[in-house]
Amino acid sequence: MKLASLVQGGRDGTLVVVNRQLTQAVAVPNIVATLQQALDGWADCAPRLTEVSARLNDGGCSDAFDFDARHCASPLPRAYQFLDGSVYLHHMEKARRARGVAMPPNHETEPLMYQGLSDSFHGPCDDVPFASEALEIDYEAEIAIITDDVPMGVGAAEAAHHIKLIMLMNDWTARALTRSELPKGFGFVQSKPASSFSPVAVTPDELGTAWRDARVHLPLLSFVDGERIGCPNAGDDMFFSYADLIAHAARTRRLAAGTIIGAGAVSNRDPATGHGCIAEVRVDEQAEHGEPRTPWLRFGTRVRIDMLDASGQSVCGTLDQRVCRAR
Amino acid sequence: MKLASLVQGGRDGTLVVVNRQLTQAVAVPNIVATLQQALDGWADCAPRLTEVSARLNDGGCSDAFDFDARHCASPLPRAYQFLDGSVYLHHMEKARRARGVAMPPNHETEPLMYQGLSDSFHGPCDDVPFASEALEIDYEAEIAIITDDVPMGVGAAEAAHHIKLIMLMNDWTARALTRSELPKGFGFVQSKPASSFSPVAVTPDELGTAWRDARVHLPLLSFVDGERIGCPNAGDDMFFSYADLIAHAARTRRLAAGTIIGAGAVSNRDPATGHGCIAEVRVDEQAEHGEPRTPWLRFGTRVRIDMLDASGQSVCGTLDQRVCRAR
Repeated sequence: MKLASLVQGGRDGTLVVVNRQLTQAVAVPNIVATLQQALDGWADCAPRLTEVSARLNDGGCSDAFDFDARHCASPLPRAYQFLDGSVYLHHMEKARRARGVAMPPNHETEPLMYQGLSDSFHGPCDDVPFASEALEIDYEAEIAIITDDVPMGVGAAEAAHHIKLIMLMNDWTARALTRSELPKGFGFVQSKPASSFSPVAVTPDELGTAWRDARVHLPLLSFVDGERIGCPNAGDDMFFSYADLIAHAARTRRLAAGTIIGAGAVSNRDPATGHGCIAEVRVDEQAEHGEPRTPWLRFGTRVRIDMLDASGQSVCGTLDQRVCRAR
Repeated sequence: MKLASLVQGGRDGTLVVVNRQLTQAVAVPNIVATLQQALDGWADCAPRLTEVSARLNDGGCSDAFDFDARHCASPLPRAYQFLDGSVYLHHMEKARRARGVAMPPNHETEPLMYQGLSDSFHGPCDDVPFASEALEIDYEAEIAIITDDVPMGVGAAEAAHHIKLIMLMNDWTARALTRSELPKGFGFVQSKPASSFSPVAVTPDELGTAWRDARVHLPLLSFVDGERIGCPNAGDDMFFSYADLIAHAARTRRLAAGTIIGAGAVSNRDPATGHGCIAEVRVDEQAEHGEPRTPWLRFGTRVRIDMLDASGQSVCGTLDQRVCRAR
């Protein structure tokens, strides 16, 4: 099943079911109004939405309409919780080298994770405002999952069953502020403004065999002004799984339905797969040329993130945005 | 105006208007169902709720009923954003001394702040579950504000106008985990489980002259098993105001309506005012006796937090909870 939220009907948008090819959608006002409401009552709602999805994919929805990602908000336009891990240790090494700091303690025994902002996300085709290019604007191509209600103290094996939806994410970052903010120890407030998510969130079964071990085994593509920056496989070099991330987050508390958990910038050790953010590109350039050569993102720069299945079909639709100057 | 959310009607509770003495309440189904909805449309809703409040305080609401804090959820049972500052530098000094770390960089030029969890809060009289007493369970008595929509880049003077509601808060903390979590730099995930808020949230005008300079100038009382631990004045030694905290949070992003911002454990330099958490008590005992003597909170321990106005009337109602073993 593939789900999206149209920018209409209020701050939480309007839930629609989207077909596999991302060409047609259908509203479900008789089932539920918003994705958050669907997640609040997932056991009831999911079977009914799945039925609509099957009918839509069979061409049996007379009220279907053309799906256009430009009319989408993030699947959850706002959420009660967003947690982001950093489980691609190769990315962590490079990000830390760029800031001149050591790897964090215990990074191989428990996931590094921060509480991120969730009060409003950018839609997949929205312009993304920054006050200044001097903030050293960067993107991070990630994959995030959405849970239903998770009890406190859940183990990783049980946690996997709480993964209800998967989507792509751009974790916009102001690199200049990470250097002043992280030494305080309190995480990201100013340096990680609102993230963006793909037009569509999909249930794990939509990935077929590419979803296993609570990991997505597909390349995550990112492009800056049309140039492909990387295509690392999200299943490779992923030190902790999404189930591990849920168990870590739920050690001392329950997680409410609609909790979004990211896994950090996807990054492979194989250099042929390129990079998933500009910071990594610059670290490699520094090593090779003695200085970084690729600039941070500028106003007007276009960033695209996508993930294709084995047949070349986009799974979650394309994040396609431009950086702009905040008014 | 004083507002509360009863535990009924779904995950967001049911909004009621409460009278000044906290003895009577009235439901407002014809205006708005939940506090989040009221905040989403504050400009429209607030005048209508204020009218009900005036009528209730005048004894003119025939459908008023007895108000009982034990039937309350937190005013926002779940929220899209919770940010907590640490602006009582005296507390920061003691908390850091307890962990054996230095004061953070720039602590006098910008507020220390973290993104906290907001997916579900404890009601004011709920038991608060922890998996083990070995987590070194502590409370922190705080005051938090709730904003309407705040634009990116707002200055502190303008930010003050976005403070719509004030409430008390218990920022429950697992001290044993802060020592392993904070050195990673990514803030609190496991060591700050769900917070609790007072039964009632009040508009700033309810504080009269005790609300000035975007600070609350009243003592914040806390009790552990009936023993008063402290009564520090929240207006004293508050290095940054709530307006400063909003401006800090909004530097690179807008804040959505319903954003909760705390200011950290209230703590005065005057030792006669006592403490606002057990960690501070233990630091002072360490200095005086060479070892801490007061234990961390145990299962069954009762923690009360309250704030009285000049006439002795509780402003926001009492947080009155017991620590319990998680099932």
